[in-house]
Amino acid sequence: MTSGRSNAGQYANLNIRSAMGSLTTNEWRVEKQTGFDGLHFSKNVPIPDLGPNDVLVRFHAASINYRDLIIATGEYRYPTNANIIPGSDGAGTVEATGSRVSRFHVGDKVITLFNQGHHAGPLDQRSMKTALGGLLDGTFRQRGVFSEEGLVAMPPNLSFLEASTLTCAGLTAWNALYGSADHPLRPGDVVLTQGSGGVSLFGIQFAKAAGATVIATTSSDEKAVRLKELGADHVINYKTTTDWGKTAKSLTPEKAGVSHILEVGGPGTLRQSLAAIKIAGLITGIGYVSKSGDQPTLLESFSAKCTVQSIVVGSRAQFEQMNRAVEAHNIHPVMDQKTFRLEDLKSAYQYMSEQRHFGKVGIKID
Amino acid sequence: MTSGRSNAGQYANLNIRSAMGSLTTNEWRVEKQTGFDGLHFSKNVPIPDLGPNDVLVRFHAASINYRDLIIATGEYRYPTNANIIPGSDGAGTVEATGSRVSRFHVGDKVITLFNQGHHAGPLDQRSMKTALGGLLDGTFRQRGVFSEEGLVAMPPNLSFLEASTLTCAGLTAWNALYGSADHPLRPGDVVLTQGSGGVSLFGIQFAKAAGATVIATTSSDEKAVRLKELGADHVINYKTTTDWGKTAKSLTPEKAGVSHILEVGGPGTLRQSLAAIKIAGLITGIGYVSKSGDQPTLLESFSAKCTVQSIVVGSRAQFEQMNRAVEAHNIHPVMDQKTFRLEDLKSAYQYMSEQRHFGKVGIKID
Amino acid sequence: MTSGRSNAGQYANLNIRSAMGSLTTNEWRVEKQTGFDGLHFSKNVPIPDLGPNDVLVRFHAASINYRDLIIATGEYRYPTNANIIPGSDGAGTVEATGSRVSRFHVGDKVITLFNQGHHAGPLDQRSMKTALGGLLDGTFRQRGVFSEEGLVAMPPNLSFLEASTLTCAGLTAWNALYGSADHPLRPGDVVLTQGSGGVSLFGIQFAKAAGATVIATTSSDEKAVRLKELGADHVINYKTTTDWGKTAKSLTPEKAGVSHILEVGGPGTLRQSLAAIKIAGLITGIGYVSKSGDQPTLLESFSAKCTVQSIVVGSRAQFEQMNRAVEAHNIHPVMDQKTFRLEDLKSAYQYMSEQRHFGKVGIKID
Amino acid sequence: MTSGRSNAGQYANLNIRSAMGSLTTNEWRVEKQTGFDGLHFSKNVPIPDLGPNDVLVRFHAASINYRDLIIATGEYRYPTNANIIPGSDGAGTVEATGSRVSRFHVGDKVITLFNQGHHAGPLDQRSMKTALGGLLDGTFRQRGVFSEEGLVAMPPNLSFLEASTLTCAGLTAWNALYGSADHPLRPGDVVLTQGSGGVSLFGIQFAKAAGATVIATTSSDEKAVRLKELGADHVINYKTTTDWGKTAKSLTPEKAGVSHILEVGGPGTLRQSLAAIKIAGLITGIGYVSKSGDQPTLLESFSAKCTVQSIVVGSRAQFEQMNRAVEAHNIHPVMDQKTFRLEDLKSAYQYMSEQRHFGKVGIKID
Repeated sequence: MTSGRSNAGQYANLNIRSAMGSLTTNEWRVEKQTGFDGLHFSKNVPIPDLGPNDVLVRFHAASINYRDLIIATGEYRYPTNANIIPGSDGAGTVEATGSRVSRFHVGDKVITLFNQGHHAGPLDQRSMKTALGGLLDGTFRQRGVFSEEGLVAMPPNLSFLEASTLTCAGLTAWNALYGSADHPLRPGDVVLTQGSGGVSLFGIQFAKAAGATVIATTSSDEKAVRLKELGADHVINYKTTTDWGKTAKSLTPEKAGVSHILEVGGPGTLRQSLAAIKIAGLITGIGYVSKSGDQPTLLESFSAKCTVQSIVVGSRAQFEQMNRAVEAHNIHPVMDQKTFRLEDLKSAYQYMSEQRHFGKVGIKID
Repeated sequence: MTSGRSNAGQYANLNIRSAMGSLTTNEWRVEKQTGFDGLHFSKNVPIPDLGPNDVLVRFHAASINYRDLIIATGEYRYPTNANIIPGSDGAGTVEATGSRVSRFHVGDKVITLFNQGHHAGPLDQRSMKTALGGLLDGTFRQRGVFSEEGLVAMPPNLSFLEASTLTCAGLTAWNALYGSADHPLRPGDVVLTQGSGGVSLFGIQFAKAAGATVIATTSSDEKAVRLKELGADHVINYKTTTDWGKTAKSLTPEKAGVSHILEVGGPGTLRQSLAAIKIAGLITGIGYVSKSGDQPTLLESFSAKCTVQSIVVGSRAQFEQMNRAVEAHNIHPVMDQKTFRLEDLKSAYQYMSEQRHFGKVGIKID
Repeated sequence: MTSGRSNAGQYANLNIRSAMGSLTTNEWRVEKQTGFDGLHFSKNVPIPDLGPNDVLVRFHAASINYRDLIIATGEYRYPTNANIIPGSDGAGTVEATGSRVSRFHVGDKVITLFNQGHHAGPLDQRSMKTALGGLLDGTFRQRGVFSEEGLVAMPPNLSFLEASTLTCAGLTAWNALYGSADHPLRPGDVVLTQGSGGVSLFGIQFAKAAGATVIATTSSDEKAVRLKELGADHVINYKTTTDWGKTAKSLTPEKAGVSHILEVGGPGTLRQSLAAIKIAGLITGIGYVSKSGDQPTLLESFSAKCTVQSIVVGSRAQFEQMNRAVEAHNIHPVMDQKTFRLEDLKSAYQYMSEQRHFGKVGIKID
Repeated sequence: MTSGRSNAGQYANLNIRSAMGSLTTNEWRVEKQTGFDGLHFSKNVPIPDLGPNDVLVRFHAASINYRDLIIATGEYRYPTNANIIPGSDGAGTVEATGSRVSRFHVGDKVITLFNQGHHAGPLDQRSMKTALGGLLDGTFRQRGVFSEEGLVAMPPNLSFLEASTLTCAGLTAWNALYGSADHPLRPGDVVLTQGSGGVSLFGIQFAKAAGATVIATTSSDEKAVRLKELGADHVINYKTTTDWGKTAKSLTPEKAGVSHILEVGGPGTLRQSLAAIKIAGLITGIGYVSKSGDQPTLLESFSAKCTVQSIVVGSRAQFEQMNRAVEAHNIHPVMDQKTFRLEDLKSAYQYMSEQRHFGKVGIKID
């Protein structure tokens, strides 16, 4: 039985404050959205009380997404709260649990959910208002209090650094591949990924785990090698291949086209995606994309007789599905060679903004 | 912005205790599972503290399900907690909200969710452990503290008594009709309901709202009239009709069979359902059913080339879908002519156990 | 048993020629795609032999779609065959059947399927190559030979003229509303239709049959009256309403937005559709649409967090679903007050090109 | 353009008879359903005319299913036609095509579809009436005429013998794993197969291709080795393991249970399957199963809160999906060490009835 509700005194707030002793946290906040200099680090900040369904997480690792950078610079186009603790991706250990918590115990290893309120089923207005590191305080800190509903158990085969990268890029790729009942991904289907951003790398790994054939695009022969190592069956250099959408289509069974495209929306990709996609195939728009390039209109897209969807990460139920696959296939997220300490977050942002990384940029949290 | 998390002091527990003054509740508990006499009524019980995501509900109405009766008698085959407050169905008004509650405000009218943790998507182990009135304290009381995740807004066209009946019987019928992507209910499809229990009556109303043709069974000509008034297109008297499954099939387009059956599992119904169902149709097993009668084996059921599923009520997301339909179609749940006061719960149980009701038996809570 | 295959001599071609006597047909062909004058009418053309799975249909009615007009003028952007018999929509009587035909008997009333090879499931390359009146000979003739797989039984409540209109406009609307497992249409959902073209009128009727709330747009108060008579719950005049997408959204439950939009793609509609749609809602692009107006890019559409699909009519399985609904709800397609004789097809094209019709323009075939 | 319909003379029956010269076939027929002796072999039987949509197939291989045996013995419980040519599974080469055939050309390698009329979407009454080798003439012959709609292209990586085994056992396993939108198979899910029949062996291969974890049962340590070689992650000896359903459940993530069970319905398996299945998991009943053993009632199955479906092979669209996976993963069906010549069909039946085979028993057709 998980419920303690039927016992007398069940709602009495445990004196977790005393249990938590004099715990504090070091944390970053976005003081001004004017650039990386608007980030502010505070030490020894007191931890708030735990509600009955809350969990205190001691973070050991976090990872950075492009979204974090543009929240800092003010270019992010979704609402954010003032003075927010940035970061959506984090992994750590449960240090304390509220009186009614049933999903976790002290000592459990957990990862944060991007939209804290997106538990299962389709996205809706309400869950979009619970985005970590934008509207709710995020992960670039030593400790944080989260609803037990906003965490998942960490796959045991991963390090904290690896696990932290699943929150945003991992779950987005998973949702793009497995989120649609109309477009199930089956062995023998063909998935197209673009470039070597986090979502694309996860996309290759997850698509291969499902037995799909993967076509990856890149602009560099060096990266092409790494994409093949990750499992890509075909790599197209989009700089040297005119009309690479057509090329991609020609690589598919009966030249019928690609089943699933993870569209990161760089310059000119959408037109090529429309050329590559199969009739009744699925293009999933993800991330925070360039506005330059030759852009097809929405109307033009109708000619491809495909489905185009846009997603915002995914649900906790999908996260748990993904974690089962990560464990069963012993999938290890691709990490950039550089990691940073929490104190050096600004350097990490700077490094990532220079776009020289390959794989996720991690933050170690002492 | 719904989040207050990023403001200083956000986690500070409001002194809700003072706001709630000296509020108390009158409540029933299942002291012993030996019969209705094991139910115990207490007055002026103190209300526990609100956690930050909790809502204090002042109930105005509740309704009884057959499940409540067998929990009291010890015949219920799922786990229950000792000394539980019974009742899954309740409707009331929000009297106080925790510091982080974003879904409701004081004064909002709300209904309880059966499995408090079943927010969206398929049922799982965990959400089955959050059944109200069995594992978590239920609704047969004046006031109760619930997670905001375990409540839905009440459709404005309903009275509290009517609204309370949606929790279990309403949502079960909705889930049986709308819960499967493989078996969508479309206008022109044929739904079969059995008898005049709560789920069956809701089934008729919801199927008609979706433009389906409804075949209802009953043993009484008098009830047949009422089922037709509710919208049933065909009523079959299962006592006087030999092989009523075949009769039902003969009433469908091209005699192909019934698309959706709400199987309440009375004696002999399953064999008739297998005779009535369409190839690739859906039989949904619901509720707490008789074990007598001529029972087909699971293996025999394979011959019907249909799908058989068993459900446990439904998710909050489905509840919200249902409520939109209830409001848009101004659907009013069928209430029995008798209602009882909270103090008279045992009489209500007794009345319902005599099976003379038609429609839901309501409890008024002063 | 429907099969005669296992009998000796089963494959022997019946001498249907003699059974069919000296049957001939009068028929239109698109001789040149240069305008309505390129249409040519021939009389007393011999009927080809029936294959074993073929059905000879004696047409009694047909109806015109905008597509027929632009095939004649050469503006149609999909491939067509030279000298094609135009027309996709037709209803008639079975006059003869091939030796292995099992779906129909002489005397049966039937309707043509738009993509003759689209039997069930998603659209694919192959079935798009079987479009009637473009790639395969169509319906603007007295008699025609069709595979039994390319016909459906006519709902008994309709006249031939009414029935013929289901082929293209009817099935397109049905597919837009019921074709997606990710986006099932449930009672209480909100559907938005645009203008008073054939698909939009069917959209209103089918959405109401499913218990949805319908918002229709129009530019005329006169038409608004007729849309309301058809069942529209709300009508917005898109000429006099600035930002009508926002207005539509405001009319939905919790102002969350419209669930399903039948997007006919007139000037400026797409931007309004993106404003009206619900998160995770479905916009279905249909038909042959204007290129003028303020067009959002595909990239911009990502902000709406919705799904956009483009369809080409629908499958035979969907047609049969639709016909069950048409019969069960006694839905009568909206016919324009004018009908034409087969001989007067050019006048019918001319009339329709002047866009003064309301409802489908029918062709009576003697 | 695939259509020749719009050309003059398009329906003229080509004189395929002359093209086909004096082709004949050797063929088996089920003269009496009284045992294998009721099978009759004829030589040099003339080939019937080709209809316009027909394809003449020269078989090079076939394979036997248990169903073929019980059709011969009269134990099959579905309708059959008298004097039927038995066999559903066949692979061969296209020797001639009717005038309107667009899916295949002379020389193409093809495989037969089990239910000739099941093209896509769910099973229905009509497609069940087109079962090869039961209601329509089957594959145990040199040559046969089939509708182009009843064939699929052969995966290029397979021999004719291997390819022929996909028709029934292969597609049944594929459908059980990939046929439900409610129960998509994702990497990390757990599939349970029973024994080493054809469907079970394909089930292991297809589930592994999709990245699932596979639990297989068997009664023999020798077979266990082979099942592991095929990819099974866990093998349970059901003879030596009491309550193997519980054991299977304990091997799944969080001990939540198996996602998909391919239920072949041997003695006592169903009760174990109900013990092993996950809440909201899918049990698919396949094939022709034992009636002995401890059988749970359908009603008892409700306690497992799962879905139970029964299928009949699958659709052509699914066959084409499967073939893409077979090619992409270079999956080779497991063949028994023995194959037989067409003339020796009775010996093949006899061999298979002795149940000493492992893998499909093939028939070479000269």
